[in-house]
Amino acid sequence: MSSRVVSAELRVRYAETDQMGVVYHANYLAWCEVGRTEFIRAAGRSYASLEADGVMLAVSEMGIRFRSPARYDDLIRVDTTLRDVRSRSLVFDYSIVNRESGALLVTAHSAHVPLGSAGQVIALPADVRQWLLAARDE
Amino acid sequence: MSSRVVSAELRVRYAETDQMGVVYHANYLAWCEVGRTEFIRAAGRSYASLEADGVMLAVSEMGIRFRSPARYDDLIRVDTTLRDVRSRSLVFDYSIVNRESGALLVTAHSAHVPLGSAGQVIALPADVRQWLLAARDE
Amino acid sequence: MSSRVVSAELRVRYAETDQMGVVYHANYLAWCEVGRTEFIRAAGRSYASLEADGVMLAVSEMGIRFRSPARYDDLIRVDTTLRDVRSRSLVFDYSIVNRESGALLVTAHSAHVPLGSAGQVIALPADVRQWLLAARDE
Amino acid sequence: MSSRVVSAELRVRYAETDQMGVVYHANYLAWCEVGRTEFIRAAGRSYASLEADGVMLAVSEMGIRFRSPARYDDLIRVDTTLRDVRSRSLVFDYSIVNRESGALLVTAHSAHVPLGSAGQVIALPADVRQWLLAARDE
Repeated sequence: MSSRVVSAELRVRYAETDQMGVVYHANYLAWCEVGRTEFIRAAGRSYASLEADGVMLAVSEMGIRFRSPARYDDLIRVDTTLRDVRSRSLVFDYSIVNRESGALLVTAHSAHVPLGSAGQVIALPADVRQWLLAARDE
Repeated sequence: MSSRVVSAELRVRYAETDQMGVVYHANYLAWCEVGRTEFIRAAGRSYASLEADGVMLAVSEMGIRFRSPARYDDLIRVDTTLRDVRSRSLVFDYSIVNRESGALLVTAHSAHVPLGSAGQVIALPADVRQWLLAARDE
Repeated sequence: MSSRVVSAELRVRYAETDQMGVVYHANYLAWCEVGRTEFIRAAGRSYASLEADGVMLAVSEMGIRFRSPARYDDLIRVDTTLRDVRSRSLVFDYSIVNRESGALLVTAHSAHVPLGSAGQVIALPADVRQWLLAARDE
Repeated sequence: MSSRVVSAELRVRYAETDQMGVVYHANYLAWCEVGRTEFIRAAGRSYASLEADGVMLAVSEMGIRFRSPARYDDLIRVDTTLRDVRSRSLVFDYSIVNRESGALLVTAHSAHVPLGSAGQVIALPADVRQWLLAARDE
């Protein structure tokens, strides 16, 4: 049994560059969020519907290694896997690559805590946890 | 009777530049919002408290002229005036200048419609309208 | 002879929302830039290559009407047309719509001045002007 | 001998919030960059002048713990220290706190590699290294 990898694609926007001539580093975090959104959709449910049902996945920790820069107009692929699902935490892993050259640009992970609609920490509802555990593996 | 001008200051962040080596144009709109926030605060009330009381001022239209670029680490001053207050619309004007050279960088205006907490268009509450009309003039 | 319309598609990112629960207004300008990039590509050349050849199209003026809000995870279509090409100015028009409902969200235009690689105003090179004039019409 | 702490202050912009009603997590990275800029300025030199002299400090790695959310209009303080300076790497540490309540919001670190103006990895020039080492400690 291996981990499910979900790929999302995007093209670098001018708005995402900085005066170093490459993508500003904080923007890769928004791309990880795009990857996470597509992982959850590929698993059969949208994150938007999860929030509508009162479950938010707040980011509690991130680690990011910036290996090679992305540039304006590059085609980018974000590969997302779900490393771990527990009642009070989830961890996603990301690889961001240049889709044309295949060069690895960024590796990252994000940890999340489930919050209820009032912003309080909650245990992940059992059905959501089962669904995510099933989604984690192919 | 002349218009009240409220000045806000900020320093250009690296994140706000693009690969042209200057501030990415959309970021000036966020600076206008900083100017608007400080105008409302100077008038005696915070926009945060206005939203907490169920009045949001959604942006309905903007016009912006980009005259000269701002650069990383420049000190910027945003001068904001309130041009007009009606029951279903407000208009703010902005001048964005380099605080050190005095160069005019951007002129802009924004029109707003009052929304209630469910996102519906509302008439500006009479007390808010009176308070803003008083704030408009020195 | 009618104007060529080039469509670009994107999905609203969580990063693009604000606490009003809708897309923060300044982000529509970055979407216009996505539309402009795709218009230029559809016309047979990338804006990245244009910049590499020493021609930048700096934004000199924008007007935007915000008609209806976009929300997280919405599918968006940006329709771009080139209104006018002169030696020292270009004007693009944009319609931003919800791709699923067809609702019109934003209409906007942007004016641009050609800059050389040192940031000085230049006349649009004759070949670039001819190429853009041809691209304007179907 | 203890580490020098340099504090930078800012106020949360509406643009920095997301539909969860709090600051979008990637924006804290831009605040770290504000802290880094002010640390370098407090040490007697601006990062802008360092770049003008052909030394860029590219971000190679970041780790961030999100402990408590910042909200629109909050006053924020970013406390920055320089943990380590080597010829091919620097590490900064950050604490982001709510200036009024004192609540700790975020802790983070960033590692950097020195790049020359063509984007190539370089050794930190000896004078810059000495100057930063002196700046690290009070």
